[in-house]
Amino acid sequence: MPKFYITYKRGMKIALAQLNYTIGDFDGNTAKIIENINRAKAESADLVVFAELSICGTPAYSLLEKVTFLEHCEEALVQIASCCDGISALVGLPIQREDGATVSAMALIQNRKVMRYVTKEFIRIGDDRPFMFGGTGVQYIKLCGKKIAIVVGEDIYKAQEYGHNADLIINTRSSQYRRGIVEKRHNDYRAMAFRYNKPIVMVNQVGAQTDVVFDGSSAFYDGQGHLVSMLNSFGEDFKVIDTEASLPEINFVEQNRTENFYKAIILGLRDYFAKNDFKKAGVGMSGGIDSAVVGALAVEALGAENVYFLMMPSQFTPDESVDDAIEMAKRLNVEYNVIPINESYKAMTESLIPVCGGTPFDVTEEKIQSRLRGTMLMAMANKKHCTILNTTNKSEFATGYGTLYGDYIGDFSILADVYKCEVYSLARYINRNQEIIPMSILEKEPSAELHPGQKDSDYLPPYDITDAILYRMIEQGQHREEIINSGFDDDVVRHIHSRLVKAASKRHQFCPILRLSTKPLRPGVEIPITTRYGLYY
Amino acid sequence: MPKFYITYKRGMKIALAQLNYTIGDFDGNTAKIIENINRAKAESADLVVFAELSICGTPAYSLLEKVTFLEHCEEALVQIASCCDGISALVGLPIQREDGATVSAMALIQNRKVMRYVTKEFIRIGDDRPFMFGGTGVQYIKLCGKKIAIVVGEDIYKAQEYGHNADLIINTRSSQYRRGIVEKRHNDYRAMAFRYNKPIVMVNQVGAQTDVVFDGSSAFYDGQGHLVSMLNSFGEDFKVIDTEASLPEINFVEQNRTENFYKAIILGLRDYFAKNDFKKAGVGMSGGIDSAVVGALAVEALGAENVYFLMMPSQFTPDESVDDAIEMAKRLNVEYNVIPINESYKAMTESLIPVCGGTPFDVTEEKIQSRLRGTMLMAMANKKHCTILNTTNKSEFATGYGTLYGDYIGDFSILADVYKCEVYSLARYINRNQEIIPMSILEKEPSAELHPGQKDSDYLPPYDITDAILYRMIEQGQHREEIINSGFDDDVVRHIHSRLVKAASKRHQFCPILRLSTKPLRPGVEIPITTRYGLYY
Repeated sequence: MPKFYITYKRGMKIALAQLNYTIGDFDGNTAKIIENINRAKAESADLVVFAELSICGTPAYSLLEKVTFLEHCEEALVQIASCCDGISALVGLPIQREDGATVSAMALIQNRKVMRYVTKEFIRIGDDRPFMFGGTGVQYIKLCGKKIAIVVGEDIYKAQEYGHNADLIINTRSSQYRRGIVEKRHNDYRAMAFRYNKPIVMVNQVGAQTDVVFDGSSAFYDGQGHLVSMLNSFGEDFKVIDTEASLPEINFVEQNRTENFYKAIILGLRDYFAKNDFKKAGVGMSGGIDSAVVGALAVEALGAENVYFLMMPSQFTPDESVDDAIEMAKRLNVEYNVIPINESYKAMTESLIPVCGGTPFDVTEEKIQSRLRGTMLMAMANKKHCTILNTTNKSEFATGYGTLYGDYIGDFSILADVYKCEVYSLARYINRNQEIIPMSILEKEPSAELHPGQKDSDYLPPYDITDAILYRMIEQGQHREEIINSGFDDDVVRHIHSRLVKAASKRHQFCPILRLSTKPLRPGVEIPITTRYGLYY
Repeated sequence: MPKFYITYKRGMKIALAQLNYTIGDFDGNTAKIIENINRAKAESADLVVFAELSICGTPAYSLLEKVTFLEHCEEALVQIASCCDGISALVGLPIQREDGATVSAMALIQNRKVMRYVTKEFIRIGDDRPFMFGGTGVQYIKLCGKKIAIVVGEDIYKAQEYGHNADLIINTRSSQYRRGIVEKRHNDYRAMAFRYNKPIVMVNQVGAQTDVVFDGSSAFYDGQGHLVSMLNSFGEDFKVIDTEASLPEINFVEQNRTENFYKAIILGLRDYFAKNDFKKAGVGMSGGIDSAVVGALAVEALGAENVYFLMMPSQFTPDESVDDAIEMAKRLNVEYNVIPINESYKAMTESLIPVCGGTPFDVTEEKIQSRLRGTMLMAMANKKHCTILNTTNKSEFATGYGTLYGDYIGDFSILADVYKCEVYSLARYINRNQEIIPMSILEKEPSAELHPGQKDSDYLPPYDITDAILYRMIEQGQHREEIINSGFDDDVVRHIHSRLVKAASKRHQFCPILRLSTKPLRPGVEIPITTRYGLYY
């Protein structure tokens, strides 16, 4: 009989510790984990459960190939185990399979000893896939007289293989946020608990790691598939549940998706700055909706005192745009400067006469304006030690509507996975209690203002059409023919598709994009740059 | 008895067709394949073998998820099969497993019919890994009285599992070039053929797809492990071999690695332009070694008439740098312009007084110079419809020694996987017959020339030290302690490592990099941007 059997039977108390880890921050993560072990002990829990890969944070990419990284994980585990007197714990870390390949494991600690590892079997498409390999899958433990199935990550979706064999299922996750996921995940777990007639405890990571947000939303479902306990979304949380207590079902309120979306962005922004030790953000304000939304989100996430705005009008910028941008800065109480680009533009175009002279004003001169703005913003970044937030939205990003090294610059993008129509939703949400973004910004027609009278609609169909087509192409993977057959104009669909394919090389040079959809556009996982497909087929 | 058994026994003739495919170019690839089937028929081959994924090209990334892409592959296969009268063929394409997952398959065509698919079992770390899944592995066919093992891709490395069961092994590959691979692969195959005492036919892809180069080097080894036939490296080739003929061993000449390196870059450059329908290249010439090497390679790959040089001196640029750059242009007969950045720099710094005013000249003003050059180069690109070649080398790229949106710009980089010391080797190779790159460029001390008297060695140790440390960190995955223990200075190693970790976010925004080493630095496969590891541990 293995030592870890505890033979008396009573109500079992499980602590769900939903924490925000930092990748490779072994001291910080370990301290957090130990603090929560102590809290669980104080609340008389029998077992405390942490998320998948809690010791090191995730996705760690090539760090998973470094032996010293794995050694640090092991050392942290030893330290954590030494604190588990009178309590069992499940902690996540990467370990090496016998053949040296790295697998995602949950260490079971009992009586201050690591008793065994449960490893994840199914590595789906995901960030860790190039570095993580398959383990052996579900294992059963006895605790408080119960047979518990320990399931790591997406192995839960193979529940048909083990769901019937346990009294209780504990599943640890590092499940990323994407639009609608909180509700979808709830429905999945509810259905699994109901189908197998088994309670499920799920503990997820929370917090952001560069471009990835974990939403938390850890939960406990009873054997009837009722949600009986749920932890915060988008914040750390801790709860002790009693598996025997008869708890009322919690009404899973129809979530406000825009609110979650908003919270995901705020968490993403805050953690990007906090975990990289950045303090101040700079935003180039054009007077348009995208930069207004980015500016408002930055102030919410970082505080007005940590944000700078820079307006860089040209001869083609209407006064109202500058007025709107200044109005935003004043409403948000943000420090700003207005630096016209006219003199720089004049000097550069005159210098370039040997290259460009005698040719008419074209896209070259438009892009010079945008790139001079990029250079100015970066000068502000260097001089004021601030981090530039990019303001490109997904509709522009997908279609390549923007200037590389111009408005495409920035250290971090919070909108490049947000369609233009969703930017408006965010703006309305930001204005829900008071008008932070002036209505004039919400109402004006989108324009890059790089030549007189220019409008986005000179290049792209209206954004409701553009977004509907892009959504079908990107999120739903529909072929042009399918989209045309469902009623969209043939030429418009082909135009958008051609832009989408051709813009792959511009997207390749973009900063990290906060991922908020199921199909963010990212180098290496989207279409190849060199391809005839899509252009000719 | 399956139909495809050919029961008479005689010497068997196999055609090895090593072709340069374009991703998603179904018409082009199919035409090439059919042309080579006809050639094989004309040369009385019993079987013609094409590389892994020959119908669609590789890596196709998310295109592998598109049903229409897979359908195009299938249609191409039907068309190809219809031409296989009197000859058998092995052609590569992606197909769907019963569960819908995509696998890499070789279709066996006999009597104008697709008889079966052999699928790749082992998907190693690689570009296709997020989209490709495991198949069933090796299969045996009977042809000309012989039992032939058909092995796709890296399944060959599991040869112990089937090597003894066949008369002959045919292995199709899409094996990428990296420094030293031609020799290493030769040694691997020689050893396998010898160990299993079986002849091996290996057919590899050739050509470049954005940042990836396939070197070809297809070969035939006899059962004693002798190399008896080898196809071109870095070019298309076609050969018919007779498995019964007793052929003399070819001396695998100790390869000139710099020559292969050079050829890989030329092929990478040529295919990047040809397959993307680009014609002209622009290079910013500083008078330094990196831009000189890029300029010379561009002229070799594309022709002098398709290359422009732009020199952009500032008040800090010594006259000799401009002279050296002009001398290069003249020797190569390349059109060039000299456009000083002084006026633009003056206008911009004066405009920025509200942001920067009253502070001393620092890195801000240095980077303004670099970014104005970036803006000018891109203006040339827009006006002259040329593609800008980046000039950053791997030593600078790894350590973040360069300016984002400044000298980091470009559509394509051919040196960011080439250490500074290797750039000098390339320069000497370029000068092997005549002095194309002036000796003054080879001999001068490296400098960014952004303030008076600036030298690279103010920021980094001499490049032989920097490169030796970086090579151990990146290529060999050594920990700082190991490198220090092998005799390198403690502070220097920590300084380089800290730069390497911190520069991850700058590297993220880089253009595609021609991959020439085993460890190119690429977003998503290197260290995370947000991490404490390496900075604190």
